[in-house]
Amino acid sequence: MSTNKVRFLPDDITIAVESHETILDAAVRAGIAVKSSCGGAGTCSRCRVITKSGQARVNSTGKLTEEELARGYALACQTYPQSDMEIEIPETSRLAAHQVLTSQGQEFDQSITPTEPLFKKIKLQLLEPSLDDHVDDMSRLYSELNKMAEVDSPCIDLEIIQKLPQTVRKGNWKVTVSLADIKGRTEIVNIEPGWDYKKYYGLALDIGTTTVVAHLVDLESGESLGVEGTYNKQAVFGDDVISRIIYAVEHKKGLEQMQTTIITTINELIDNLVEGSHVDHNDIWYITCAANTTMTHLFLGIDPEYIRLEPYVPAFNSINPITAADLSIKANPKARIYCLPGIASYVGGDITAGVEVTGIDKQDDINLFIDVGTNGEMVLGNSEWLVACACSAGPAFEGGGIAYGMRAMDGAIEHIRVTPGTLDVYWETVGNKKPVGICGSGLIDCISTLREAGVIDRTGNFLPLPANERVQIIDGEKLFILVPAEESGTGTDITISQTDIKDLIRSKAAVFAGVQTMLKTVGLPVEAIERVYIAGGFGRYINLHDAINIGMFPDLPLERYKYIGNSSVKGAKMALLSKEARREAEKLAEKITYIELSIGNDFMEEFVSALFIPHTNVDLFPSINQACNPV
Amino acid sequence: MSTNKVRFLPDDITIAVESHETILDAAVRAGIAVKSSCGGAGTCSRCRVITKSGQARVNSTGKLTEEELARGYALACQTYPQSDMEIEIPETSRLAAHQVLTSQGQEFDQSITPTEPLFKKIKLQLLEPSLDDHVDDMSRLYSELNKMAEVDSPCIDLEIIQKLPQTVRKGNWKVTVSLADIKGRTEIVNIEPGWDYKKYYGLALDIGTTTVVAHLVDLESGESLGVEGTYNKQAVFGDDVISRIIYAVEHKKGLEQMQTTIITTINELIDNLVEGSHVDHNDIWYITCAANTTMTHLFLGIDPEYIRLEPYVPAFNSINPITAADLSIKANPKARIYCLPGIASYVGGDITAGVEVTGIDKQDDINLFIDVGTNGEMVLGNSEWLVACACSAGPAFEGGGIAYGMRAMDGAIEHIRVTPGTLDVYWETVGNKKPVGICGSGLIDCISTLREAGVIDRTGNFLPLPANERVQIIDGEKLFILVPAEESGTGTDITISQTDIKDLIRSKAAVFAGVQTMLKTVGLPVEAIERVYIAGGFGRYINLHDAINIGMFPDLPLERYKYIGNSSVKGAKMALLSKEARREAEKLAEKITYIELSIGNDFMEEFVSALFIPHTNVDLFPSINQACNPV
Ligand code: FES
Ligand SMILES: [Mg+2]
Ligand SMILES: [Mg+2]
Repeated sequence: MSTNKVRFLPDDITIAVESHETILDAAVRAGIAVKSSCGGAGTCSRCRVITKSGQARVNSTGKLTEEELARGYALACQTYPQSDMEIEIPETSRLAAHQVLTSQGQEFDQSITPTEPLFKKIKLQLLEPSLDDHVDDMSRLYSELNKMAEVDSPCIDLEIIQKLPQTVRKGNWKVTVSLADIKGRTEIVNIEPGWDYKKYYGLALDIGTTTVVAHLVDLESGESLGVEGTYNKQAVFGDDVISRIIYAVEHKKGLEQMQTTIITTINELIDNLVEGSHVDHNDIWYITCAANTTMTHLFLGIDPEYIRLEPYVPAFNSINPITAADLSIKANPKARIYCLPGIASYVGGDITAGVEVTGIDKQDDINLFIDVGTNGEMVLGNSEWLVACACSAGPAFEGGGIAYGMRAMDGAIEHIRVTPGTLDVYWETVGNKKPVGICGSGLIDCISTLREAGVIDRTGNFLPLPANERVQIIDGEKLFILVPAEESGTGTDITISQTDIKDLIRSKAAVFAGVQTMLKTVGLPVEAIERVYIAGGFGRYINLHDAINIGMFPDLPLERYKYIGNSSVKGAKMALLSKEARREAEKLAEKITYIELSIGNDFMEEFVSALFIPHTNVDLFPSINQACNPV
Repeated sequence: MSTNKVRFLPDDITIAVESHETILDAAVRAGIAVKSSCGGAGTCSRCRVITKSGQARVNSTGKLTEEELARGYALACQTYPQSDMEIEIPETSRLAAHQVLTSQGQEFDQSITPTEPLFKKIKLQLLEPSLDDHVDDMSRLYSELNKMAEVDSPCIDLEIIQKLPQTVRKGNWKVTVSLADIKGRTEIVNIEPGWDYKKYYGLALDIGTTTVVAHLVDLESGESLGVEGTYNKQAVFGDDVISRIIYAVEHKKGLEQMQTTIITTINELIDNLVEGSHVDHNDIWYITCAANTTMTHLFLGIDPEYIRLEPYVPAFNSINPITAADLSIKANPKARIYCLPGIASYVGGDITAGVEVTGIDKQDDINLFIDVGTNGEMVLGNSEWLVACACSAGPAFEGGGIAYGMRAMDGAIEHIRVTPGTLDVYWETVGNKKPVGICGSGLIDCISTLREAGVIDRTGNFLPLPANERVQIIDGEKLFILVPAEESGTGTDITISQTDIKDLIRSKAAVFAGVQTMLKTVGLPVEAIERVYIAGGFGRYINLHDAINIGMFPDLPLERYKYIGNSSVKGAKMALLSKEARREAEKLAEKITYIELSIGNDFMEEFVSALFIPHTNVDLFPSINQACNPV
């Protein structure tokens, strides 16, 4: 075994790499976040790097084209340096602070008035002892606390009691007591002498598989002092929850690594937030967190292995609040962390949060909640019943697995139109930058417009067309050139291939099949849905007309759709500011009936029927003018 | 400032000592436990050492006699080495593992059957998950726990949940769950896979100012596997609670030092117990502790300052169980420590324990409980009412402040008779060793017999008598020679002086005045007392006839007295083995009304009246034949 030096460009970071180590692992060690959607399996081709000099053993070249290979491209996860090397990591292969959905959607944007926050400070005037009233300091405190805040037999750490006699006397029997809710019980986490207390803050977290968002909240006013979002650094271990679980389970210290990574991600967000708001880390006293079940397990360092193995059982859905010190989160060490309760292995606390934000559990009408990400999670119901399911939509809509797919960051095509006949292409990109790829909303547009332009048939296959330079066969595969090399920001064509299109159809079919299976389970038609709430990452940019057009979302009047933004972080914030909301979330999680789609044939049948544009059964999409859509 | 070497003999330990440091401090640093009842103030003269060589600056010689000074005696706390020195520390100046009251008194000796111990392990058979039952591991556990043990929403540490998926599967869905009571709530402190669990133990502790006793208890059978007792190593900081408080408050890190010292004392007891019983420290899962209020504060590291300052307010009386890790107690780090609730600054959890053991709170008859130690604590009452008080009896009965007083260890005179006329002395010692001093029970005998022999009058003053070599005046003070030098184990006379006698009368007066004040408060005569329970250190050896004779205990038929031994440790053991007993103790502590003797004149009047043998008012002691007691 030999050791070589690898110099990463343009960063100019040099690191010693053993000959059995991949360039991907070396880059991670060097602190460079390289995309690796498949977690290093060599199948996603996201980890493209360019060899500038040196020799390497190459295991596989994945989907790299002849042309790319000629230009020195290699997959970082499949390349083992055998000499000193210089490696360029192109911008497109890096995880970057991309557009993260931090806001909460129009109608839900108002700040929340704290009713009974999970943490609060209250001022108490204790009775001074005398020879006629020689009650101990602690009972003195407790009886006043009971009178003023209805707190009975609180928890309290020894170190606070140790200082109690000095504290109460220093404040001349006036104290400010910090109370944290630890689920059904109150803890005294701090006692300050006097009434001039320090301000106090909370943090609402949305830990997504892809992105992490944090709100810094003033717990007295309920205002968000700042919002920060970033990608989940765990992305270097794979794009979806399954690859994260596999990494955690199969690598020695994998779970520990996974946990440290998400905690580092969160701590960086906190650093940014407190710096921007001139807040002291130690004044953050409560953290609420909404995340999918796998993320919650990894965040807490809890073995996620059985989430992915039949019968798909999580270690827990609901857990008592733990402390910031338990997780090395950069807040007051005694700050409590509350994770919103999940429902099942693939429907987590982020969905509980979302449903609570929509309030569909309080309405008589039947409503549908959809969070479309890598997993499409959805909840259907009203005040009487609620059912939920998760369909593995796959990472296609988040840019995963699609050759030029990417997340909604600068240069991503978010809207696109193909003119029938000429096949001229009109596009719009995020940030009006030169296009470098295509994001989820663009991909939906793309399928819709290619179908409308007669480029593909109802099954997604390319139709025979008069010769046009837009349609080509490269490496034996048909593809459509969306942006030619000379117009793109990468210097290469941006294309969509037959495989990409089939992948996207599978994804949209999974979403629609999920909705249909739920409707079938409760015996209701599509029209019974009064309102559809769309949550999550790319939902905001979706052209609903196109999403319905391709048969992804049910064919309902557009006004029944409502985009609610990041309902996960919003739900976390609600719980932070109101014990009632926290209790509601718990009731909700218990109330929702999870439908396991892998049991029985219902979902599979629905899925197969949905593998058409828009659907095998066109009656389900009456608004779509089939006349315009020649087979 | 110079540094010199001091060599301690016969230990042969040499240590560097700065010129501003006392020999006492140096000895403590060298690990030699030297008596220092007054905490180094130079007043108790307990820290006698012998200068073998070298020069020293001497601050005070206290009560050392001319003869002692001539023989090289010095007070360790008042002596500052100014050259290299050799210092002998005689056996009589050392704290030694002396006779510690570990047993529980005849009638209370039976082992307790655990009803609902504060810690237990229960076996659970969990339902195996399937596709039709995909409930999470934790809910699976909790529902079974609820069914089998009626435990609802238990506390549980993150680290247990982290391993839960592996644990339940390793045991093939059989687990053994360890449950600890944390006052009104249950904590899951451990989960073992399968049903072959490890045995589990508890510890019942009596932390006295003078001695510490520990029982190692099998929590399944309720049996004590071993009992160990030793002196409280804090004794080097002073004999009574007041000197301990002063040391803790006035020395930098004094409280920390005091806490470390008692914890070291306890850890040594634990080491001895586990070694003797072949038990693993980690299998000790619960500790209950009964102690006076000051000891509880010092044990937990809680500021005791205001206990001794008017209006005598403790920091707390009752506290939620803390963990062994919090205090570095050598048990399982997650073991809980429960301190029996106290009543007031000078009536602590040891008294609550004692009262619970006697069960006087459940009887219609009026009973009296007395724990005579440095502080005489007493409780009077029945099932309807209970009053308590503490009289500063002073350390006389524990051997403190009396020239030849000592604790009940080998060579201590425990019984003594003086023949009227000849003044011949008959004595018995602990362990039948040559006498080296006189312990509490001997001192009571001594006053009684000196009075009966007509050596002293009703006020304790020596009477004019025909010349007898037993009565001498040395250094201007009258004294009675109990054992002449040639018969003693120390080579010096063992004497009792006028000052000693007055001290002892003050002590006995304080005890009786306490009883009288309580009776007055509730408006009852002495005869109303149906039974008197005597608890604590030297109670067992007291000659009741003599104790009544000198007017220390009320003049009631001897059969109404019952010695109950170390009721403190017994109460701690009851709480350990029964949640009901723990709850009872809490109710009891709330029910007992504390009478502060420093308020009003009642106690002072009673005290002054009791400064006679037996009392100013002889009608209170009808059984004592006054005819035999010439004034
Ligand atoms: S191909 Fe390298 S990480 Fe996916
Ligand atoms: Mg999300
Ligand atoms: Mg005691």
